[in-house]
Amino acid sequence: MKGYVFHGPGQSSWEDVPDPAVKEPTDAIVRIDAVTICGTDLHILKGDVPEVRPGTVLGHEAVGEIVETGADVRTVRPGDRVLVSCITACGRCAYCRRAMYGQCRGGGGWILGHLIDGTQAEYVRVPYADLSVHPLPAALPDQDAVLLADIFPTAYEVGVLNGQVRPGDTVAVVGAGPVGLAAVATARLFSPERILAVDPAAARRDAARRLGAHAVAAPAEAPEQLTADLTDGLGADVVIEAVGLPETFELCTRMVRPGGHVANVGVHGSPATLHLEDLWIKNVTLTTGLVDTHSTPTLLRMASAGLLPTADLVTHTFPVEHMAQAYEVFAGAADTGALKVVLKRHLHEQLPSTA
Amino acid sequence: MKGYVFHGPGQSSWEDVPDPAVKEPTDAIVRIDAVTICGTDLHILKGDVPEVRPGTVLGHEAVGEIVETGADVRTVRPGDRVLVSCITACGRCAYCRRAMYGQCRGGGGWILGHLIDGTQAEYVRVPYADLSVHPLPAALPDQDAVLLADIFPTAYEVGVLNGQVRPGDTVAVVGAGPVGLAAVATARLFSPERILAVDPAAARRDAARRLGAHAVAAPAEAPEQLTADLTDGLGADVVIEAVGLPETFELCTRMVRPGGHVANVGVHGSPATLHLEDLWIKNVTLTTGLVDTHSTPTLLRMASAGLLPTADLVTHTFPVEHMAQAYEVFAGAADTGALKVVLKRHLHEQLPSTA
Amino acid sequence: MKGYVFHGPGQSSWEDVPDPAVKEPTDAIVRIDAVTICGTDLHILKGDVPEVRPGTVLGHEAVGEIVETGADVRTVRPGDRVLVSCITACGRCAYCRRAMYGQCRGGGGWILGHLIDGTQAEYVRVPYADLSVHPLPAALPDQDAVLLADIFPTAYEVGVLNGQVRPGDTVAVVGAGPVGLAAVATARLFSPERILAVDPAAARRDAARRLGAHAVAAPAEAPEQLTADLTDGLGADVVIEAVGLPETFELCTRMVRPGGHVANVGVHGSPATLHLEDLWIKNVTLTTGLVDTHSTPTLLRMASAGLLPTADLVTHTFPVEHMAQAYEVFAGAADTGALKVVLKRHLHEQLPSTA
Amino acid sequence: MKGYVFHGPGQSSWEDVPDPAVKEPTDAIVRIDAVTICGTDLHILKGDVPEVRPGTVLGHEAVGEIVETGADVRTVRPGDRVLVSCITACGRCAYCRRAMYGQCRGGGGWILGHLIDGTQAEYVRVPYADLSVHPLPAALPDQDAVLLADIFPTAYEVGVLNGQVRPGDTVAVVGAGPVGLAAVATARLFSPERILAVDPAAARRDAARRLGAHAVAAPAEAPEQLTADLTDGLGADVVIEAVGLPETFELCTRMVRPGGHVANVGVHGSPATLHLEDLWIKNVTLTTGLVDTHSTPTLLRMASAGLLPTADLVTHTFPVEHMAQAYEVFAGAADTGALKVVLKRHLHEQLPSTA
Repeated sequence: MKGYVFHGPGQSSWEDVPDPAVKEPTDAIVRIDAVTICGTDLHILKGDVPEVRPGTVLGHEAVGEIVETGADVRTVRPGDRVLVSCITACGRCAYCRRAMYGQCRGGGGWILGHLIDGTQAEYVRVPYADLSVHPLPAALPDQDAVLLADIFPTAYEVGVLNGQVRPGDTVAVVGAGPVGLAAVATARLFSPERILAVDPAAARRDAARRLGAHAVAAPAEAPEQLTADLTDGLGADVVIEAVGLPETFELCTRMVRPGGHVANVGVHGSPATLHLEDLWIKNVTLTTGLVDTHSTPTLLRMASAGLLPTADLVTHTFPVEHMAQAYEVFAGAADTGALKVVLKRHLHEQLPSTA
Repeated sequence: MKGYVFHGPGQSSWEDVPDPAVKEPTDAIVRIDAVTICGTDLHILKGDVPEVRPGTVLGHEAVGEIVETGADVRTVRPGDRVLVSCITACGRCAYCRRAMYGQCRGGGGWILGHLIDGTQAEYVRVPYADLSVHPLPAALPDQDAVLLADIFPTAYEVGVLNGQVRPGDTVAVVGAGPVGLAAVATARLFSPERILAVDPAAARRDAARRLGAHAVAAPAEAPEQLTADLTDGLGADVVIEAVGLPETFELCTRMVRPGGHVANVGVHGSPATLHLEDLWIKNVTLTTGLVDTHSTPTLLRMASAGLLPTADLVTHTFPVEHMAQAYEVFAGAADTGALKVVLKRHLHEQLPSTA
Repeated sequence: MKGYVFHGPGQSSWEDVPDPAVKEPTDAIVRIDAVTICGTDLHILKGDVPEVRPGTVLGHEAVGEIVETGADVRTVRPGDRVLVSCITACGRCAYCRRAMYGQCRGGGGWILGHLIDGTQAEYVRVPYADLSVHPLPAALPDQDAVLLADIFPTAYEVGVLNGQVRPGDTVAVVGAGPVGLAAVATARLFSPERILAVDPAAARRDAARRLGAHAVAAPAEAPEQLTADLTDGLGADVVIEAVGLPETFELCTRMVRPGGHVANVGVHGSPATLHLEDLWIKNVTLTTGLVDTHSTPTLLRMASAGLLPTADLVTHTFPVEHMAQAYEVFAGAADTGALKVVLKRHLHEQLPSTA
Repeated sequence: MKGYVFHGPGQSSWEDVPDPAVKEPTDAIVRIDAVTICGTDLHILKGDVPEVRPGTVLGHEAVGEIVETGADVRTVRPGDRVLVSCITACGRCAYCRRAMYGQCRGGGGWILGHLIDGTQAEYVRVPYADLSVHPLPAALPDQDAVLLADIFPTAYEVGVLNGQVRPGDTVAVVGAGPVGLAAVATARLFSPERILAVDPAAARRDAARRLGAHAVAAPAEAPEQLTADLTDGLGADVVIEAVGLPETFELCTRMVRPGGHVANVGVHGSPATLHLEDLWIKNVTLTTGLVDTHSTPTLLRMASAGLLPTADLVTHTFPVEHMAQAYEVFAGAADTGALKVVLKRHLHEQLPSTA
């Protein structure tokens, strides 16, 4: 089959790779119908994630059809249309028993396109399939569903739930890329009084407004002051960091009210300064996290019921074999305006010999 | 009357000051029977807390007797023996309505010995007395009770409750000064499997053992490794910072397990480095806070029932007029071994003219 | 002034009563601009609430203007337009300190129109005004605001918050009278996947649909089966009882899924049967409660922001002096279709001599 | 092998039964080293649990050694000493994903000695072994460990955690049989101020005192009044029902304070009367539940650390082949003073042919 292979920093291509096969009785093989690219994939390509070995197929988000299952897979069967979650869960370790699948100690966690071959391919082997794929409601189109593989549960769990958004709150979301926009959309599920989105790109601020932000600001427009003005000088109840830079994290800690929450969603590559000389007295809660995807079944039902604006985040679609081009468009978001790009299987393609 | 007055950095004395008087209908005047000195008072004397104006009587912890009340004080009356809490609460602002008295926006919060005259004196005026003093059970001696004015609720609320200590947990307490020791003692209320206390002073490590720590370590003894060894390499469920320095805070963030809590109790004067490049993926919760004292009524009942080892923290007692000497002993803890010093009223002293 | 006075079961009239006056320094006198009638008032008129003594002015919900305040009222002043909450809070007892104002032990709780004269009058004395009235945003009309005196916080706190409604849930509301409809409206703040409303009256089922119920059923239409059908046989995540009869409570306990919540809002006059032989194994949580009104400030902001459909519940308005007629219309809801009736002050009326 | 077989109401015997064998790749076969009898087993013998078919081996609590595992068992292996939990968990259904194993929809829940052959035998087949047995710390003796198969997690999860016991609380435990006594013991983990145990049997009241109850009462000694006297007339913060009768449940609802919790642990065979005419206004939370055993790993660590008084509950031990006699002693607790009876494997017995 074909897959998109990482060959070291700056080097990758859509090329022939071996067909995946069931190795463990809990594995499933999934034919990929739709796949997307994550900001994390760009980090891998830059060489920022050294545990990804050259030769690995990238990608950790997909929608597809089960074509084969191991002997101990019980909840899905060949022919089922499923979401491949970015998180794989052994279901047996102490973390999985607490639904903290992202921290799985039994061989799961974020492994697809990271420690094992991923989803930017024609087929993928998914370990621990019972807990790592989710049957899809028929009514949910592939390109909506694929956004629930990572960015929607990430924004919801790590941003909105960790941040404890409540009805009537003032919520600030710093960063209006795909995850930040998904945070705007899922924060609305708790009926905050207002959401302020902060991003330097006008197009992303516009997208934030379309997804439900009540106010937007560029970082240069003094978002701290705007937040203070909106809240009698107190600050936001919840601030969600969806960028991953020291300066945006530090901005978040200045925008939060005493007793409020800062929920970090961004992937950080360097330390930030924590102004404890100001914060020690403010009763602030800061949270970090890799997504656990415990919310994925709920989000799938909500997306099927039309309660999540998934489609609004997809700006470009490509055939899956145009993966390299899709990476260019996604990486050049400042020029292309890309939010999420979705790649789809060619409809007339033959099944491979393994199926 | 006499009081201990701050006259600017490095200058203070036990001297004549005007008797306090009721100014508002919600005020009470309390005759001080026992008072203590807080680490924060040492910071004030150094000039680290610039909002304390020269001329202010210091102190925010006391036990005493009500001698006069304003017309709208309803829950206490002259003759009542009370605890004067370090936090004053208006009871009417949005923060007080959520029992976040430390963040009071109606003229309360930490004001005694800070924005108004405090408790290191013969008498003190306590605003909003109904919510700011607590009637004392007869069975509880003054020198036990006075530890509930600040350090016990601080350790319990900001350390143990914010840290969400649970039965079976591994808890690390970094810093075994009075507040850290009170954190060891109140963490035990939730039956953790083990408590590790970290402090450079051998005497304080011994005190931690006496108060219930199962293991102790000096910072130089690789407490991170010890924590890892005790927890199958995971780290502590809860780490409580009770020092207030960047390096101890950073140590705490290295000792916590994925999914664990770091509860900052220490008063910080400078920023710390937050290693988000490691922590973003670890599902860690960091909390800060000034005490609210919402737990004080509960702690008073528990202390009366013998469930809190308050007396074990008092190493020295003085007559109140020896305040300057008590400050020396407390500030020289490395040499004197002081934990908490308690100063008591001379029993034959006359009531002042205001009473 | 005039007020609506209870004279024993079945007897009441709009008649001359003494003008209220400030008795305590924490009292306020409020001129009533809009007032409503509660189902509880009908119970009082029937004689079901024996602690209401003949001679009492009824009513516990109002909007008006402060005309006089005691010496220790700090947060409102004459001229302020306020909501008079159904719950009065001393702010100093152990329950008030936990924001459980409905259980106030210091002379508050539900006292207006119950233990002291209430709001169905031209003026009312409100004890503990700082914690018992709420300043009103200018943008919020009287007839919307008055619904926040009781039914909206009751439905939200005792129904939706106690029931722990979550995004994606299936929620059933049994009873689509004013409180049940407010439960439908406030449950939506948490984005449940679907809300089922149950009521025998077609008009109320229609109102439930308008307020956001996704499905409705009469009690005779097997709502248990409908709930099971919607939820793969499991039952509803949250069931809210908003009637107050044994049979509706028992229906709720049959509609809830294992692990779900039954939140009782209804006022009950007789015992219900609890089928513990079925429920003991189901991990069900049942809650009861009088409203605390801790959510009132939040709900006021949300109503001002247009997030609560308050106006949709008002079916009739009257001048305040037509109180007797308003009671008839409200009591005859089956024929009149009344939900909430609002009575308004005559605009040209003089201020009384006390102001 | 031998096992204790139910043959219909009143009929049972220790007799030859087929050796169990691995049927599914997730099964394990466990040689029983210690087993106990539960009050529920007595209900089965009386015919109160009709879904238990004649021919079933009884018992759902055991300690033993793994002798064989299916191909997909990953976390234990032959030779491991394990606790066999009363709850079996598929680990894949929606309930298991939330750690609500007692409500498992994938073939687990309470099945041992109920829907399939149980542990009162020489060997038992345990489905879904990875999530249904727990490796035992070497230091924990069999007869202590076996109490963690059911009664300790039941008392802790369904009583103490559902009841939300907090430091300083007043806790009442109604019923001082084995589960009630385990509730007394595990309530202490949260440092309540006092625990009141209620039981008609003097010996059980004495046992409650030994396990940490501060006060005890017979039902005839007006425990409601005693609770009121201890709590300024308010009632207990948490009341735990550990009997399973309408009258004891109703007593619990009269002993709880406004805002308190009633946690039902008892297995009920008939309905109770819920006095909603009193309770609707009291902000009470009532919970029910079958144990999930999510706390078992934590309790095992705590028992190993000496923090649980497990041994104090074992009053009688027998060789396993004396099962019928052990049932008599346990059923005649009023005369024999039995709390828990433990049966142990004969040490010289041969391994069966399956091993």
